[in-house]
Amino acid sequence: MAPTIDGVRLLKALDELAQVGATEGGGCARLALSDEDKAGRDLVVGWMRALGLKVGVDAIGNVIGVRAGREDLPPVMTGSHIDTVRTGGRYDGNYGVLAGLEVVRALNAAKMTTRRPIAVAFFTNEEGARFQPDMMGSLVYAGGLGLNEAYAAADSEGIAVGDELRRIGYLGTVRPGAIRPHAFLELHIEQGPILDEEKIRIGVVESVQGISWTEYTVGGVSNHAGTTPMRLRRDAGYLAASVTVFVRRLAREMGGHQVATVGTLSLRPNLINVVPNLAVFTVDLRNTDDALLKEAETRLAAHVREVAREERLAVESRSLARFEPVAFDAGLVDRVEHHARGLSLSTRRMPSGAGHDAQMMQRLCPTAMIFVPSVAGLSHNVREHTEPADLVAGAEVLFNLVLELAESG
Amino acid sequence: MAPTIDGVRLLKALDELAQVGATEGGGCARLALSDEDKAGRDLVVGWMRALGLKVGVDAIGNVIGVRAGREDLPPVMTGSHIDTVRTGGRYDGNYGVLAGLEVVRALNAAKMTTRRPIAVAFFTNEEGARFQPDMMGSLVYAGGLGLNEAYAAADSEGIAVGDELRRIGYLGTVRPGAIRPHAFLELHIEQGPILDEEKIRIGVVESVQGISWTEYTVGGVSNHAGTTPMRLRRDAGYLAASVTVFVRRLAREMGGHQVATVGTLSLRPNLINVVPNLAVFTVDLRNTDDALLKEAETRLAAHVREVAREERLAVESRSLARFEPVAFDAGLVDRVEHHARGLSLSTRRMPSGAGHDAQMMQRLCPTAMIFVPSVAGLSHNVREHTEPADLVAGAEVLFNLVLELAESG
Repeated sequence: MAPTIDGVRLLKALDELAQVGATEGGGCARLALSDEDKAGRDLVVGWMRALGLKVGVDAIGNVIGVRAGREDLPPVMTGSHIDTVRTGGRYDGNYGVLAGLEVVRALNAAKMTTRRPIAVAFFTNEEGARFQPDMMGSLVYAGGLGLNEAYAAADSEGIAVGDELRRIGYLGTVRPGAIRPHAFLELHIEQGPILDEEKIRIGVVESVQGISWTEYTVGGVSNHAGTTPMRLRRDAGYLAASVTVFVRRLAREMGGHQVATVGTLSLRPNLINVVPNLAVFTVDLRNTDDALLKEAETRLAAHVREVAREERLAVESRSLARFEPVAFDAGLVDRVEHHARGLSLSTRRMPSGAGHDAQMMQRLCPTAMIFVPSVAGLSHNVREHTEPADLVAGAEVLFNLVLELAESG
Repeated sequence: MAPTIDGVRLLKALDELAQVGATEGGGCARLALSDEDKAGRDLVVGWMRALGLKVGVDAIGNVIGVRAGREDLPPVMTGSHIDTVRTGGRYDGNYGVLAGLEVVRALNAAKMTTRRPIAVAFFTNEEGARFQPDMMGSLVYAGGLGLNEAYAAADSEGIAVGDELRRIGYLGTVRPGAIRPHAFLELHIEQGPILDEEKIRIGVVESVQGISWTEYTVGGVSNHAGTTPMRLRRDAGYLAASVTVFVRRLAREMGGHQVATVGTLSLRPNLINVVPNLAVFTVDLRNTDDALLKEAETRLAAHVREVAREERLAVESRSLARFEPVAFDAGLVDRVEHHARGLSLSTRRMPSGAGHDAQMMQRLCPTAMIFVPSVAGLSHNVREHTEPADLVAGAEVLFNLVLELAESG
């Protein structure tokens, strides 16, 4: 009996995991290391054990289930993450992890053992919605961030990663990075509109955009909105607004893959008739080309300085995350394209606009990613959706490529 | 013995009232109809009774203490408010009320009875920081807002004015507006930088700027900040930022007395890597000329429509307050100038940039205002300050003018 993945079984598993931390409108809220994340982890770990995987939890909470091979070689690893943003959908991350388990399930059903072991992983705090930096688990795994620094990262209420890992029972003893894979594959929804707009089934991901996150804290003077002439104002909110408008224009001017977002902003005292004396906001800049990303950072910093001087504001900036663009393994990228075409699926080479654990794993081993379409490009949104046929098609590409790699020398 | 106000006694009363709801840095937080407001009211009502005033509380919680005259004529009324913003100072409002009580105290000390009665008032919810519209008590007093509408006004937690009046014991039985004064005077800090910059002791207030407060609720689409090309974004926060920058430019272009402020703004989901799908913000526009204020409103509305169309956003706007500019009684304004000069104080005619209860009272009777300098123009700020000598000088101008009016036919 030739092994084959079972699409219905995969969709059912996605549905079950989506019940954990379910939100109105069909989304999921499982912020990293929250009670909901723990419940999601427990469910997936239970599935791993039921599939006969040997489950290890490492010191940053990454979970890796290993299916033994005929030979004791480095495994082919696949996986993603199961934490979500507050307004998360059902597929972001979860899809890659559960498709990996479906690969194992298919091999188990066919009673087939591959030459190399196969490992399925989910990494801690990919989203960065609660703790920064994002992609924390894979970053630690790849040696890019020390454990103590990761443990000390605190959420907005001052609660630290180390304490939360212990509280939810996922402070493991395995050394992060202990398994150095033969290759790593991550199957993921695109989270953008390109495949959907162009009606293409499989995105062959060549690279990941570099990411630059900066938080600005702006100090001005709160004063009466009616009596303070415009020329005498020191309005912290004005700088935040000016930067929001500036980065929009900057991204449009630079074109290409440059994007820029002001996603968070708070004002104090936040009263109708008082000029704000404090603004805290973030800027998210991304580009596939590090030189262009640096140019965007430089132009943003210059704009901030200029407005701060004009408005006589004190500005502090803090880098919350900075990742260079990553190019995936060219040979492995070719094999993604090969297997998609072998299944008669249309393909498009593209960069990833979002950060992914795969970009960290590329530091350790040949890595590639497979994208499937996101309807209307919606993600980090409860209405995030991918057509079931596309979910199954992506899993089939993953399955065929894992099998090839798991038999390779 | 000629009656005279006692500056030390006035400053002591200001200090005592400032202890109620005192905040770090020397400010006050007595939001309208809060427990702190009740405590402040109780203290001032106690002082009124101790001075022998006949105290009435009306159905919107305005408190008026009356000192009998030799004849049963309409009284000369003075007063202001004792509620504050969250980040309020010690003098905004309180100064005018306690200076009024000091006028009474001086007359009592001299055992002098005036021809007309003298009334000292404090009005409910002048600030509008908790309930809109601001100047609520005086607006109801002047017949500009019905009691039921005022009672129904709710704060951000859904708590209504009527319920809070009852809870703190200031839902009185007197009909608002029952006393129609012979004249009304309000002594107040400038809350702006002009007198301080020009080293002038007394501001002779000719008019109050018109005020237009609008709240905008902007609906966009939340989406991934990395994967969504700029051209496909529907970013609610961008509109808020664009309006903030636009109104700054608009006010500068229009010049004169036009000011514009975005004081409150909140974004949802308010995450670093998610395009905001909801922005709620307010715009505060003011001008001394109603035609120009209308022009500013029209240009703002056009800008909002334009950005909403470009960005494909749904925008709802709601007027939170709209008051036309008010001209005070020309004869009474002249008398303010006369008495200031009689005390050898430098004067300057000026509009008020802030709204004041006096503008409502001008609907009922000849009204004027007296301003004293605010150091560095700070107000609605815990560092709000006026030099003691200026506080006393303003009270002396008030005293002399009240005496003149109280003896007049």
